[in-house]
This record gives sequence, C-alpha cells and structure tokens, in this order.
Amino acid sequence: MKSHVNLALVGFGTIGSGTLQLLKEHRRDVEARVGAKVRMKWICAKEYKYPQLIDKTIRKTKNWQDVINDPDVDCVIELMGGTHPALDVVTAALKAGKHVVTANKAILSKHWNDIFGTAERMRKLVYFEAAVGGGVPVVQALNEGLAGNKIHKIVGILNGTTNFILTQMQETGASFDEALKAAQVAGFAEANPTFDIEGIDAAQKISILASLAAGQWLSPDHVTSEGISRLQSTDSRIIQERFNCTIKLLAIAEKTPRGWILRVHPTLVPNAHPFAHARNEYNAIALHGNAVGEVMLYGKGAGRLPTASAVLSDIIFISRQIANGTAGRVPYVSRRDHQTVEFGSMNDVRCRYYLRITTLDKPGVLSKLTGILGKNKVSLASVHQDTFGNQSAPSSVTVILLTHESREADVQASVKAIDRLSTTKAKTVLLRME
Amino acid sequence: MKSHVNLALVGFGTIGSGTLQLLKEHRRDVEARVGAKVRMKWICAKEYKYPQLIDKTIRKTKNWQDVINDPDVDCVIELMGGTHPALDVVTAALKAGKHVVTANKAILSKHWNDIFGTAERMRKLVYFEAAVGGGVPVVQALNEGLAGNKIHKIVGILNGTTNFILTQMQETGASFDEALKAAQVAGFAEANPTFDIEGIDAAQKISILASLAAGQWLSPDHVTSEGISRLQSTDSRIIQERFNCTIKLLAIAEKTPRGWILRVHPTLVPNAHPFAHARNEYNAIALHGNAVGEVMLYGKGAGRLPTASAVLSDIIFISRQIANGTAGRVPYVSRRDHQTVEFGSMNDVRCRYYLRITTLDKPGVLSKLTGILGKNKVSLASVHQDTFGNQSAPSSVTVILLTHESREADVQASVKAIDRLSTTKAKTVLLRME
Repeated sequence: MKSHVNLALVGFGTIGSGTLQLLKEHRRDVEARVGAKVRMKWICAKEYKYPQLIDKTIRKTKNWQDVINDPDVDCVIELMGGTHPALDVVTAALKAGKHVVTANKAILSKHWNDIFGTAERMRKLVYFEAAVGGGVPVVQALNEGLAGNKIHKIVGILNGTTNFILTQMQETGASFDEALKAAQVAGFAEANPTFDIEGIDAAQKISILASLAAGQWLSPDHVTSEGISRLQSTDSRIIQERFNCTIKLLAIAEKTPRGWILRVHPTLVPNAHPFAHARNEYNAIALHGNAVGEVMLYGKGAGRLPTASAVLSDIIFISRQIANGTAGRVPYVSRRDHQTVEFGSMNDVRCRYYLRITTLDKPGVLSKLTGILGKNKVSLASVHQDTFGNQSAPSSVTVILLTHESREADVQASVKAIDRLSTTKAKTVLLRME
Repeated sequence: MKSHVNLALVGFGTIGSGTLQLLKEHRRDVEARVGAKVRMKWICAKEYKYPQLIDKTIRKTKNWQDVINDPDVDCVIELMGGTHPALDVVTAALKAGKHVVTANKAILSKHWNDIFGTAERMRKLVYFEAAVGGGVPVVQALNEGLAGNKIHKIVGILNGTTNFILTQMQETGASFDEALKAAQVAGFAEANPTFDIEGIDAAQKISILASLAAGQWLSPDHVTSEGISRLQSTDSRIIQERFNCTIKLLAIAEKTPRGWILRVHPTLVPNAHPFAHARNEYNAIALHGNAVGEVMLYGKGAGRLPTASAVLSDIIFISRQIANGTAGRVPYVSRRDHQTVEFGSMNDVRCRYYLRITTLDKPGVLSKLTGILGKNKVSLASVHQDTFGNQSAPSSVTVILLTHESREADVQASVKAIDRLSTTKAKTVLLRME
C-alpha cells in the first residue's frame, strides 16, 4: 500500500486546468475513493494561464523530460493534444515505469498497437476515457460494461464542433460558413477548423471505439470520411421541412460478413430518433451488442469540465490501483494481436440515400433519371419534384429522390451517370440516411 | 497467475440459463479477455429447465452449501432472486473466501452495509451490474465512468414491467388491468405483479444507484413510493392528447440542501424528451453530475439475454482479477461509513403538478378551487375545463389544473381541502411532472 500517489500533468490548457480544478474541488471524495493521498507534483506547460490553481506544492517546468526523470511520479497525465511531442511523452512515461492518463485520440488511434504494446510489456496502464465522447463514459461502457456482448455496430455523434454547426444550420437556417463563424465565436470551433469539419476527429474517435469493440486495432486509415463543409443550407432546410429529418455527422463502425466497415459522413436522422435530440456540443453513441441489443449513451461530448471529469475518473481508478499495488497487472485494453482484421469496402455499405438533382425542366428527364437508377438496381422510395423555394433559375428544376436500402457502389454509379447527362445542371447532392 | 477460474451458478432460471448460454457462445472472447480458462463447475438449482446447456463437466446440486464448501470455487454467481436464501448464499460465499456476482437488487438495497462490509473485511468483490438497468451498464457508469463528478440527481425509468404496461395504456388506450394482462401474456409481468406495479422494484433500484452516488447506504426504506395500479386511462389519454406528454414511472434521487430525497411515482414526461422514447421493456437513466452535466443511458432493462450479458460482463472482470491475483485488493464500491446521511422530506420536493378534479358544474366552483390553491401558495400555469369525453355524469365537470413549480406539501394540502368541498365528486387525481 502506498500512502501517496504522485501525478504529473503535461499540458495545461483548457482540459488540463479543468482537471486540476476538479481535482482540487473533489479532493476529499477522490482520496476516499483512492484510499491514499493524491498529489499533483508537476505541471509541465509552455505557459500558465490559470495561476490561481497552482499552489506552491506544485513544481513547474517547460521540459517534459523533468517529469519523466522524476522517479516519484507514478502517473503522467498527457493533455497536450497533437502528435508531437505527445506520443514521445506517453511512450517515455511508460518506458520509465509510469502509468498514463491521456485524452489524445490522435496518438491512440494512430499508434494503438505501439502504445498498448509498450504498456503491456511494461505492465503499465493507459486510461483514456476523455479521448472519445468527452464526459460520456463510452470507453468504459464498451470496454467493460458491455464486455458480455459481441459488439457488431457502433453509431455515434462524436464531434461537438460539427454538431454545433449542424444544429445552427438546422435551427437558424444559417449557411455552413455563417454557422462555422457562430461556432468559433461560441468557442466550439478552432481558428483552423479542418480537423473537425472534415471528419478527421470523428474518424479517429470511431477508430478507437471500433478497436475496443473488435479487440484489435482498426486504424483511422480504414475510415472513409466525408466532412460537412460542402453541406448546403438548401438541403438542411428541405430535409427538415419535407422529410422531418435532421442532418448529423455520424461516425459508424459495422462488422459486416465481409469485415469491418468504418465511415464518417453527414447523415439524415429522423426527428423522432433520440439522436436528433443531441444538440450543439452533445454527443450520442449507440452500441449494438448481440445479447443486449441497442444501448445508447448521451451527454456533453466537449467542454472544459465535462471532459476534465472524464480525465479525473481515469485518475481516480488508476490511482486506486497504484495505491494498492495492482496497477498494470491486468491490461486495460485487451488485444488479440495474432488475428488479422478483415475490412469490408465502402462500396458494400447498404443504406438509404437522399439525392438532390438539379436538372433542366424538360419532358422525359424524370424517366431518364429513374431509368439510370433502375439499371443500377437502386429502387426508389419516393420522388419529389418542385422548385423547393429556388426561384432563381426558372428553367431548371430540383428533383429529390429517396431510395430504399441500396448498395453504395450502385448509388455512386447512378450519380456518376446522372451527372454526365446534358440535362443535369449541377453536381448531384448525395446524403445517406440511417 | 491462475490458469483456471472456477465459477458456480446458484439459480438456473431465465437469467441463469441465459448467462450460461452466453458464456458458452462467447467462450473464446471471454477467455481472451480474462487471460485464463473460465469454467462453470457447479449449477445449483431446484430444477433444470435447459438441460441442453448443461454438459457433463458441470456438477449439479440442489444444495447451495455444496458450492460454498468446494474450495475450488472462486466466484459464486447468485441468480436466485428474492431474499431467502439468496442473502445467506452471498454472505456464506464471501465468508468462505469467494467473490460474488449477483443481480439481486432486493438483498443489495436492503443489506448494503452488511454485504459490502463483509466483502471488504474478506477482501472479496461483489459485482452487480445486472441488478439495475438490465443490460444498460449504469452501475459501472455511475461507480467508475462518472467518478470524477459529484452526482446530485438521478432520474430513471428503471422497471420494465411498468414501462411495458404504461406503453400499452398510452398506445392502445387500454385500461391498467387490460395492459397488465397484456404484459403478463408477453412475459413482462409476473403472475403476482405487486412488486413491480407498486414501485417496490424501482425503489430498490434507485436505492442502489443513490447509494453508489452518495458513497453511503440510502436504504429503500427512505424511498417514497407510489405505483401505477391506480392510474386511469382517462388521465393517460388526456395527458397524451392535450398536453403532448406521456406517463412514465420515474425513480428519482436528488440531493437537496436538506439532504437526499428518494421517490418513485408516475410522472408526466414531455413527448419531446428522450425518456418518452423509452418504450416497453426499455430503461432510461439520466445522471446529473456537477462537472459533466446530464449523461443519459438507454437500453433494454429486462429480458433474458440483455440481463445475462450484464452478468457475463461482471464475470469477465471479476475472473480477470481472480486470474491475476488482484481481486478484492480494492473494494468495488467505496463507502464512507462514518458520515451520517442526511435525508430531506418528500414534503419539500418541488416540481410541477397535474391535478384532475371532478366537481359539480356550479357557478363559483372554479374560483373556489383556485382560491384554495392560491391560499396554499400554489400558482397555476393553466386551467382546462370541459367534459374530456366523459358524458356519463352531465351535472359534473372535469377541471384540470397544471401548476407552476410548487412545493409538495402545499399541493397536498390544497388537494385535501379540495376533496373536502361538497362540490367535489371524486378523489382528485394528482400526478407530478418532470
């Protein structure tokens, strides 16, 4: 039994300072759960924006090696973000015999086997509840609570920035650019938002969840990603008004007979579905298990204190095991390295599709369109033709087609053929439905 | 390191047989996660309804002492239900140095300190994911995933039977008795349904969740319970048609400035709230933390395989620790025995109320009613007066009052005064809103 657990915080931005704040506020609770004193020994950061949180007992450094070289440090909390030097910090910490708590989805998703392999060899723990879903305890639910299931599908709203933007577009009729600006003003989008709006963040998060579900590394390189930056408010409006749906950026991992298929794309969700209620920075995740059916989790996926609370729960459980001398005897993530992972192709995805076609208003055009789809084995659920409020080009007309469940490759081939028609006046908009 | 973990199943009904079935189906996955062979050594039951699941390697007995007396048994899985002899089995198992997995909300909620006290003294684990929420991993979410929070409110649909009955009443217009029969036919209600419909089951479950949140035992004796057996289809219909709400049996634990208040009662929930989407056997639980805000979990709260999958996840995590020799070094549930628990009174609950008053259709009656409420400091949000489809008693009229947030004691005093009026023709119906 250790009477003290020594922590070191590397990275002291929004989440790092939030974590220290919660640790101070909840110290009595935390220490009761841990069964030992929990002490923040080091903070490593380039600058110290929240000096009021840093008392005299905490040592400060700009050099993360100081933390690694201190043999008293039991656990390193990496909250720098990005890949460099975060990956080096985590690897060096494990190799120096320290446990790790991290919220870093980039390094976990891209270096899964390296990180957990090193952890296993060193018999150290890596906890990462805050890396996916912010305050929503989805990592633990998937890794432990639902361990009695084979999870064959995960569907999630995993990115708060895009969900904030989509909520704004939906509720205020704003364009993508306007909604992005609103998100930046509200502090929900970075100055350079590419990582979020192009679906890269969601791809890394679904890679982590799918790797937990599969017990094998499914890297983000296998995720087919489509962001929201090309979404038009026209579609957002039509989908809401005509189809009683809302657009969400969904991250989906599914085990098909041909293997795992991972994808991120804007998706039509019926307003009656609980996902439609996940507004702004909220995340929602549905886990489908063979025994339990569907389990849904919902909560704040971003924000300082929600994310910091997930980091703190990791700190509590890792510290408890450190205090008791059991930490690292059992790896947190189980991996079956020896098995090869099978991947299916995006072409084999089956779902329903929304197609918005801008075409010349000429006789026979509709029959041509439906003919192309029929030839490609895409069957239609409904056809809608009118101006949809677009009076600017009176000679052209908007046709909206909703398909029955169809194969991605067949729909893509149809859209290609439609866009080659001389009567088609703009690139066809394709959105998927869940 | 142990190469084998030996389990014993006590109770072989619906959940017990489901657990054995899942263990067999998932054996490779389970053993990969555990890092050792997992063997069901004993089944103890009065009768063996699923003989095809029981292979020759499993020993059978009718006497649970056989299981306790076998020094090879590492973990006892108690799935008998009820208090006797389940409590004796769990206590004897712990005292004999065995870990325990149980789904028994009755013994946990009523003997919390005894069971976890014995477990702590013996350094043994008691896991109980299936005791609340069936397949929904709410115990782990509360106990571990959200440990970085102070949880101050828990609201849940925790009983599948009553939720099935309420869904039937709502969707088919059935009376309570008809809906109960439908639930019995569908296998969602027992022949003697008292335990479920009077809210006793939900009270035990909210007691368990609140005890986890508080880190102290909040016994079901402190839960104010009201069941659904007196609900009338009239109210179900009015609430749906006029107020766009649905009735759910909610279990609520809230930490107020005066202490914890625990209650179970039928409650109006707006149809736009995600809880309204939890139909039939689904459970939904909202956990409110100071850092994370609201986290919601949703999934199947009853049924053979959903519940068995929760038992199996407990078996996996307990077996993993048994195999590694770490089980019981850290208690699963942290308790702060020394602190006394403060309880608030049901009288101090503040919420909105629905009152249905049946009164003589005489001038001045409405002003009398509203006068009583005003005198008791209950302010009204809306007043509705018509026959509400009730043509049977032309001389009487139905008045429905929705209040603003008011204090329980004030509303109860008002209802008492209203029911004493000579013009009031039936007991006033009082329902709460969330």
